[in-house]
Amino acid sequence: MVDAESFKGWAGVDEKACEGKLEFQSFEVKPWDEDDVDVKILYCGICGSDASALSGEWGPVKDSVPQICGHEIVGEVIRVGEKIENGIKLGQLVGIGAQSDSCRECGDCKAHNENFCPKQTITFNQTFNRGNGKGSISRGGFAKYWRGPSRFAIPIPDGIDPAVAAPLLCGGVTVYTPLERYGAGTKAKNVGIIGVGGLGHMAILLANAMGANVTAISRSDSKQKDAEKLGARAYIATGDDVQAALKPHARSLDLIICTSNPPKFPVADYMSLIRPEGTFCFVGIAPEPLEVPTFPLITGTIAIAGSYIGSPDTIARLFKFVSEKKVEPWIQKWDMDDINKAMPAFQRGDPKYRFVLVNTDNGGKV
Amino acid sequence: MVDAESFKGWAGVDEKACEGKLEFQSFEVKPWDEDDVDVKILYCGICGSDASALSGEWGPVKDSVPQICGHEIVGEVIRVGEKIENGIKLGQLVGIGAQSDSCRECGDCKAHNENFCPKQTITFNQTFNRGNGKGSISRGGFAKYWRGPSRFAIPIPDGIDPAVAAPLLCGGVTVYTPLERYGAGTKAKNVGIIGVGGLGHMAILLANAMGANVTAISRSDSKQKDAEKLGARAYIATGDDVQAALKPHARSLDLIICTSNPPKFPVADYMSLIRPEGTFCFVGIAPEPLEVPTFPLITGTIAIAGSYIGSPDTIARLFKFVSEKKVEPWIQKWDMDDINKAMPAFQRGDPKYRFVLVNTDNGGKV
Repeated sequence: MVDAESFKGWAGVDEKACEGKLEFQSFEVKPWDEDDVDVKILYCGICGSDASALSGEWGPVKDSVPQICGHEIVGEVIRVGEKIENGIKLGQLVGIGAQSDSCRECGDCKAHNENFCPKQTITFNQTFNRGNGKGSISRGGFAKYWRGPSRFAIPIPDGIDPAVAAPLLCGGVTVYTPLERYGAGTKAKNVGIIGVGGLGHMAILLANAMGANVTAISRSDSKQKDAEKLGARAYIATGDDVQAALKPHARSLDLIICTSNPPKFPVADYMSLIRPEGTFCFVGIAPEPLEVPTFPLITGTIAIAGSYIGSPDTIARLFKFVSEKKVEPWIQKWDMDDINKAMPAFQRGDPKYRFVLVNTDNGGKV
Repeated sequence: MVDAESFKGWAGVDEKACEGKLEFQSFEVKPWDEDDVDVKILYCGICGSDASALSGEWGPVKDSVPQICGHEIVGEVIRVGEKIENGIKLGQLVGIGAQSDSCRECGDCKAHNENFCPKQTITFNQTFNRGNGKGSISRGGFAKYWRGPSRFAIPIPDGIDPAVAAPLLCGGVTVYTPLERYGAGTKAKNVGIIGVGGLGHMAILLANAMGANVTAISRSDSKQKDAEKLGARAYIATGDDVQAALKPHARSLDLIICTSNPPKFPVADYMSLIRPEGTFCFVGIAPEPLEVPTFPLITGTIAIAGSYIGSPDTIARLFKFVSEKKVEPWIQKWDMDDINKAMPAFQRGDPKYRFVLVNTDNGGKV
């Protein structure tokens, strides 16, 4: 058992958090529920939405201090309740992604699509709505320990490096879910991935492992070699004249996963790439609405879709797939004690392609 | 055999065509190809896109006179070439929809998705691109006879009133195709139909016959009784405050087919209706782009899609379905000689819910 004082982490207290101003402090953890687990955190990935929250893009940071972000959490189970799910045992390695709870009563929860539950709790700065934890705030993985419902602590199978499992928990499952839904490699043989970054590099790896013919699409040619190493068979550098660059590739892709999210994505320029009955799927929220012309939408018989993270069951399938296919996201590790160096480097775009923080004092390996 | 002089029809010659100024005249028909059929026209539906073309919305009418529109054509085969497809025989009843030809060489044509062929010919005012017909203009069904490739003349099975078959050929298959694609009645149990008009009333009939739980959505309550007779189990009158009207129905529909096309459809207001993994599908082109916010698109895991007519094979499946399920679109018949009365009535919104023109002199029955 871990005592309440042991819940310490790197807290955002104002909008300068990502500039190297996270503060190590104790935080109040949710009261124990009998379906909870406590987890000793070994690794935690850094995802774009951590930076968004800590920079005040989602509202003033001071409104919910301390902000303990981090939602690609890998650790060892050190306490289990009497009503735990998933058959989790003490000492087991588990991962927690962007979602920490859901209502368990709605149709989506009962169908184990908890990521669709309207009353869900994301892993950081949101309110739990059930049991003893009702009203308390969710705390993420930039910390020494995590506590939360066992349903959202997914066992990590043998054959996956636990550090590499971390970025799969949010970024990985966010792209895996639509790749699986739209049949990458089967129904969708030709898959385009826009953006070669944290999410994009995993999307290329996964789509390729699923048997798809992958085209990577980026602004410049600076990512071409990496994209090819990751498994892309074609590469489009759009440059400034996107329409001209895409023209030779008209109607060549069954599915596009767009991991790029500028303020307003010029989706109309990209619609010509999609084959009839194909889908252009966004995974990153942008502040301005898309402008979607109806003529190519209808005459092309295409869809503009969105996809939101993945359910615990989907994360479990992703782990199994990655373990079997030996897919390995490209990560760089940082000691979590150096988070105030790692976060500014993340903001500069340094990751090639995902940063993973390591609690060496808890047994994580740099 | 029908001699060239017999190809006469009601031609649009300027933008006043729909005001009762269609002119009965001879027109030049495509040269004969051995995969062609000649058809004695008995019935032809009036579709919104006929009115759009004849009103100059698709470009000046004078640029392609005479405009012989009409693309929901039912008639009797009176001549068959030596290389006809579909096993069509003399005397057979066939239907021709919005598409009259395609390249036959691309992957989409080979997969019998001819409606996706980039070199297709629509049934009126477009150029044929193959064989002897290459370069000649397609002529529609506001006429006594039709000539074109047999692949696009779909046999009408017994058990369908040939007059009722007419509106299925464009309007019907336009809504049937996405209902079938997205699994109305199976995967998509709850289906919304926006607009109770020509297309909308057929969408309600078809979705209900497919086993879906149909919600009709219209601006006022004036169509409620008809919608219920057509098979809708629920009805939403949006009034002027669309968001307030839709709020009680949030996340209730797996699929929406939108048959309404104002200049700019407020799709953001309707996205809340869609269940996760559901689809909002447009079938009518609007001049202004849709504004699609990414937050509900992604967090809702929904798709905004378009769908374009249907292939000959899909029309054949629709005929079979309609024949088996005894689905009957609601039509009013007009003698085709009265087209200059029918077209202004169509423009006034009089159809309840589809007008069908009848060539009584060819044997059609009013």
